[in-house]
Amino acid sequence: MDARGLAPWLADRLPAGAVIIDPVQLATYACDGLAHYKVVPAVVVLPETAEQVATVVRACAEHGVPFVARGAGTGLSGGALPHADGVLVVLSRMRDVVEVDRANQRAVVQPGVVNLQLSALTRPDGYYFAPDPSSQQVCSVGGNVAENSGGAHCLKYGFTTGHVTGLQLVTPAGELVELGGKAPDLPGYDLLGAVVGSEGTLGVATRVTVRLTRTPEAVETLLAGFPDTDSAGRAVSAVISAGVVPAAIEMMDALAIEAAEAAVHCGYPAGAGAVLIVELDGPRPEVAHQFEQVKGMCEDAGAFEIRVAADDTERALIWKGRKSAFAAVGRISPDYIVQDGVIPRTRLAEALTRIEALAGERGVRVANVFHAGDGNLHPLVLFDDAVPGEAERAEEASGAIIDLCIELGGSITGEHGVGSDKAKYMPRMFGEDDLDTMQLVRCAFDPAGIANPGKIFPTPRLCGEVPRRRTASEGAHPLVEAGLADQF
Amino acid sequence: MDARGLAPWLADRLPAGAVIIDPVQLATYACDGLAHYKVVPAVVVLPETAEQVATVVRACAEHGVPFVARGAGTGLSGGALPHADGVLVVLSRMRDVVEVDRANQRAVVQPGVVNLQLSALTRPDGYYFAPDPSSQQVCSVGGNVAENSGGAHCLKYGFTTGHVTGLQLVTPAGELVELGGKAPDLPGYDLLGAVVGSEGTLGVATRVTVRLTRTPEAVETLLAGFPDTDSAGRAVSAVISAGVVPAAIEMMDALAIEAAEAAVHCGYPAGAGAVLIVELDGPRPEVAHQFEQVKGMCEDAGAFEIRVAADDTERALIWKGRKSAFAAVGRISPDYIVQDGVIPRTRLAEALTRIEALAGERGVRVANVFHAGDGNLHPLVLFDDAVPGEAERAEEASGAIIDLCIELGGSITGEHGVGSDKAKYMPRMFGEDDLDTMQLVRCAFDPAGIANPGKIFPTPRLCGEVPRRRTASEGAHPLVEAGLADQF
Repeated sequence: MDARGLAPWLADRLPAGAVIIDPVQLATYACDGLAHYKVVPAVVVLPETAEQVATVVRACAEHGVPFVARGAGTGLSGGALPHADGVLVVLSRMRDVVEVDRANQRAVVQPGVVNLQLSALTRPDGYYFAPDPSSQQVCSVGGNVAENSGGAHCLKYGFTTGHVTGLQLVTPAGELVELGGKAPDLPGYDLLGAVVGSEGTLGVATRVTVRLTRTPEAVETLLAGFPDTDSAGRAVSAVISAGVVPAAIEMMDALAIEAAEAAVHCGYPAGAGAVLIVELDGPRPEVAHQFEQVKGMCEDAGAFEIRVAADDTERALIWKGRKSAFAAVGRISPDYIVQDGVIPRTRLAEALTRIEALAGERGVRVANVFHAGDGNLHPLVLFDDAVPGEAERAEEASGAIIDLCIELGGSITGEHGVGSDKAKYMPRMFGEDDLDTMQLVRCAFDPAGIANPGKIFPTPRLCGEVPRRRTASEGAHPLVEAGLADQF
Repeated sequence: MDARGLAPWLADRLPAGAVIIDPVQLATYACDGLAHYKVVPAVVVLPETAEQVATVVRACAEHGVPFVARGAGTGLSGGALPHADGVLVVLSRMRDVVEVDRANQRAVVQPGVVNLQLSALTRPDGYYFAPDPSSQQVCSVGGNVAENSGGAHCLKYGFTTGHVTGLQLVTPAGELVELGGKAPDLPGYDLLGAVVGSEGTLGVATRVTVRLTRTPEAVETLLAGFPDTDSAGRAVSAVISAGVVPAAIEMMDALAIEAAEAAVHCGYPAGAGAVLIVELDGPRPEVAHQFEQVKGMCEDAGAFEIRVAADDTERALIWKGRKSAFAAVGRISPDYIVQDGVIPRTRLAEALTRIEALAGERGVRVANVFHAGDGNLHPLVLFDDAVPGEAERAEEASGAIIDLCIELGGSITGEHGVGSDKAKYMPRMFGEDDLDTMQLVRCAFDPAGIANPGKIFPTPRLCGEVPRRRTASEGAHPLVEAGLADQF
């Protein structure tokens, strides 16, 4: 039975209106935040409980029907791109906060809970949920888990994986399992780490236990204007080498500043070739002490203007420019591609010079916005789709940036994930044995390959094709046969 | 071919003296730190390179011979207990520090490098390796990886898993794979997290990339004497609730203090029913500020004496009592069992009362030493093997403590691992589906079950017995057949 054939059976078991097959409605689910890939799913379901998710997945497993889980659909790598013959499991109706356990600094939530709502709910008690992707006003905790989301503050606080201590998961066979719990470092395998960031290929999270972080006693935010990215980069290096761990240290180059100014009038220093936003948080005396250090380092590196947020309103304005940067480039370019790559922090200056050169060679411009502290670049490649050939040249420049990240010893994605977009680059980062090892784990969870197929891994392979390790009853491992056996 | 049969072939391929079959020499490897389990291995090998490890493991895979990896042999759960018909892969000759990359705060080491040596090597540059199990003077980084070791300072700095960013691993099929690297949060599955703490069941780490931590600017250490564990427990709760994260917060009860005094004359407050050691580290102003807070909280909770270490010598003396506590109980009892369990921090007082009661019922005494901040108890059950029946009653009390930890919502091990010792408790913590999921991952790496068999999982099962997920070509998953199929 195919996905459409399952729909009536599912409709009998799910709440009214929870199974969608109307083409017009289906079309609204055709893409996530990476809007240039579009696939209309065969069926959309909107379950309200873990049991309903399990029912859907078990039905898919029984009939070999692919399924894709979707949170708020804000992902930027096409991780929630539907499958044309599959079921799209939309988790937006599962948005209960099941428990807030203040004594143990944990919250238990359904996957559809919006990231920022969780912080808003716990802030009166002095806690918040630390991962803060730029989409945090709309993105869901379940999506954060699938993509192992980062954000401006993950330099200090780490990615989502450091803030999830337990998951209830519907495996691709439709079983409800518990991974981890409220306590850290449980015995047995830490499968939690493998599942967080597995982009929906190992199952669907139906309940998430997260660590709550204490709201810091003090926060200080500084905006520094530099003549160029080189001098701003020197300030970043100085701060990090001094052992200061800012909550965030963000850089924007001239073109990104221009875009932000045009869009939100954030009042960044005029004529700056680069700005740095540095935020420190923690106990008040520590913040005061380090803030003076950071200011001095910015000055030493060549900052011509340093502005300190006097209150939350000024802080919000500083951040507004940064957080709206992606959307803002729409003001200075009709079309753009958001890239996401990582380089070793020590090679920042070299990377920026070469990005400018490779963009110039292809006749496109690149605005750079990035999490400077951990070398996570977000180059925005600007182009005009109305000019014949420009989209292709922008795509080419965007790809060349990823090539550069790999060449410099970095990574193909910092926080947006591999998804549909970057699966092709995986063999450039990983050897065949490394990918086979991941594939063996995928096959352990999902031998039929029905959980978000086509994502992360470049070549769709049936699990039977992955080299299998020898079992006592099956004879030799093919690689062992080929390799070692002839040495005996 | 069995393990002994492999020995000549291995001897041809490994350096001179690297293959041991002499019974007297073999006997020295019969146990790790959990000395009451002893098994003499069939063969011991001492490889010097990753390729040699791979050669050994491939040979084992080819012939279905079990193998067990061993670091420094300091583990306390029998994780490195040899297999009588197997090869023990001892990694003590692989102790090169391959690279110290200061700019990126990483070191790359072979698994046999001693934990404290790595810190000693990097300290002149202002860095150290944060995980600090009590055995850190002798234990190896590879063993830390296998057991996901903690230590007194993991309350603030986290377990080993947070300090490993890359592994070179020989899989149980003998393949050399790379997991992770120097950069954090690489794309693809985070198998690193699953392998760290998998106690040698997913392969042998042959190179470890670790995160180096900046040496803190200031360290302050305080020793507070309390009339009883209840009042000390209140101080712990006050500190944690205030959002202070000490580098360490350790508690010892009267019996543990008595033992430490007898052994190392550490000069703990006379007549104390409990002592707390609180260490704060970080930027100087933060430490000074929080130190005053912590002192006030100890006084409010009833501390009758508070002593502050004036320098490193005094700090070392305070720690000497704590770090020698396990060995010190030998002064007050001929024999003892070191237990390791976790309870939610909020139930500390209840746990201690019930431990005292359950020990009393069995006529044995328990000295308590623990990482109070994260609820990780180390009860030392004292007994005299010369008194008939006392060893059995001590064992019984030790088991009852673990039952209590589970009942209170905690865990069967905080940092010593499951190993041979606690596999039997795993079904009390995990459901059958949860264990099956771990087993599927184990089978993905090691279908022949030759990598450290019998550890972690209670019932040795052949991989074929684990419920398999359906593949397109294999027909329905047995659980799906049993469950969903009849609903259609």
